[in-house]
Amino acid sequence: MRWADGFIAVDWGTTNRRGYRIAPDGSLADEFADDLGILSVPKGGFPKAVASLTQRLGDLPMLMAGMVGSNRGWREAPYVPCPAGLPEIAQRIEWVEPGRIGIVPGVCWSDGEAADVMRGEEVQILGAYAAGLVGADATVCHPGTHNKLIRLEDGRITRFRTVMTGEMFNLLSEHSILSDLLSNPVHDGEAFEEGVRRGIEGEALTAEFFSVRARVLLGKAKAEDAASYTSGLLIGADIRTGLKLAGEGEIVAMGRPDLTALYGSALRLCGRTAREVDGEQAFLAGAKHLAELVQ
Amino acid sequence: MRWADGFIAVDWGTTNRRGYRIAPDGSLADEFADDLGILSVPKGGFPKAVASLTQRLGDLPMLMAGMVGSNRGWREAPYVPCPAGLPEIAQRIEWVEPGRIGIVPGVCWSDGEAADVMRGEEVQILGAYAAGLVGADATVCHPGTHNKLIRLEDGRITRFRTVMTGEMFNLLSEHSILSDLLSNPVHDGEAFEEGVRRGIEGEALTAEFFSVRARVLLGKAKAEDAASYTSGLLIGADIRTGLKLAGEGEIVAMGRPDLTALYGSALRLCGRTAREVDGEQAFLAGAKHLAELVQ
Repeated sequence: MRWADGFIAVDWGTTNRRGYRIAPDGSLADEFADDLGILSVPKGGFPKAVASLTQRLGDLPMLMAGMVGSNRGWREAPYVPCPAGLPEIAQRIEWVEPGRIGIVPGVCWSDGEAADVMRGEEVQILGAYAAGLVGADATVCHPGTHNKLIRLEDGRITRFRTVMTGEMFNLLSEHSILSDLLSNPVHDGEAFEEGVRRGIEGEALTAEFFSVRARVLLGKAKAEDAASYTSGLLIGADIRTGLKLAGEGEIVAMGRPDLTALYGSALRLCGRTAREVDGEQAFLAGAKHLAELVQ
Repeated sequence: MRWADGFIAVDWGTTNRRGYRIAPDGSLADEFADDLGILSVPKGGFPKAVASLTQRLGDLPMLMAGMVGSNRGWREAPYVPCPAGLPEIAQRIEWVEPGRIGIVPGVCWSDGEAADVMRGEEVQILGAYAAGLVGADATVCHPGTHNKLIRLEDGRITRFRTVMTGEMFNLLSEHSILSDLLSNPVHDGEAFEEGVRRGIEGEALTAEFFSVRARVLLGKAKAEDAASYTSGLLIGADIRTGLKLAGEGEIVAMGRPDLTALYGSALRLCGRTAREVDGEQAFLAGAKHLAELVQ
């Protein structure tokens, strides 16, 4: 890394952002997070929103990843098509201030009529590979509002699938006929495992969701287990999609530890294991490797 | 039918109700509908809500079906287990006023840990069979907020599956990341058919939903087609579930003509045809047969 005084890496999402100051030796010198996601920034408000970051973390060169590069963000950084590794992404950084303030592009995949996009996760996935946390050929499961299931081949993202897992759970618990049943916390146990097994079977989720209520009405399940069972259904459907991508290869769960633990449990039910990688460490590794590539 | 002056049949759902006065000769003498669904009736308010019906349609014996018999309704009429025909249902009518004001029970199905319930559709399905509109062995698809896919064998409901089709479309269009894309009306055409084909393939719906946005972002689909495509995805997943129930047997689409037409189109894409039956006619036939059985 050659930016003499270090740099700032920002993971700027829809509803929050997280900034890190990386010291010249590559170590983490400072960090900062707030809920100023891109949807909270008014039109024309990005220079001011960036100033609040440099004020907090220092007036240094900056690499920003995530939804800040979308058509709702500061400036659109067009998607890099698969296969995409860090070199391809570094070449397509959108420079707001040349060589000093750059927006990292997302990655897209398409095949015929099918299509998918990501913004932000690519820095984590490819950073984890660059740092040796993930092998060159693996499938990464990155749970969250929009779970990403990503195939990595020869150190590049070759295809991926986004699953609306977290968002669907929120839709059901906040607005659906199941909302009164889904207020309990999700925990890894018998009900969760039963949901995972059903989810993996691949019946239509819209049918499985109604059964959550019917099972309680007919005394087949306890109301307090409904949230864990429903989470299991959704994660089971994810795993089914992920296993198609993964084949017999290595599977890595990356992200928030509470979520990667649930996916780890679900995978064990299919006789598979998933190594867990911390998403923040992976992001920092990716940002540092990008910083080296752009100088 | 022996109630000397005829009777009133009521289809009383969650958000609205529909009452019919049946003349002594079985013909429809009057009808009335409003939005006083059971969720709009205050605790203890059912006698008053019923009085507004008799005031409008006449002080006659009354049979009520639908959510009015649920644990949120007037009085709970416990589900009749499959196999359930009109005779079994007639025997289990919950009489609020013996022989004069009765609540028709719903039907439940369970097998091991799996379970499902219905309230109201059973009168239509079994009424259609009693009136010769549906054969003794058929699969009925009854689209709506909660689509019911029902197997009829020897004139009885033997199993069924509820799919949260309409509710899911509403959740996505009102509260999800797709809401801006789903404001256009759904129409039967190329985008709908493409969605049906994908939905039938059986990939996780949570993955297919995200692709609705990605396809538009990458120029694979037009934003104005997103609602039709998404409706196709949901209906395709329904059809997949329904075909498992139906096997090679007859399929009947029953309900609102605009919805049964979409299901008819979707089924033709799989080389199947569905006869369409009007849900209101079926309900009236079912109510009349029940009235004969209880006297």
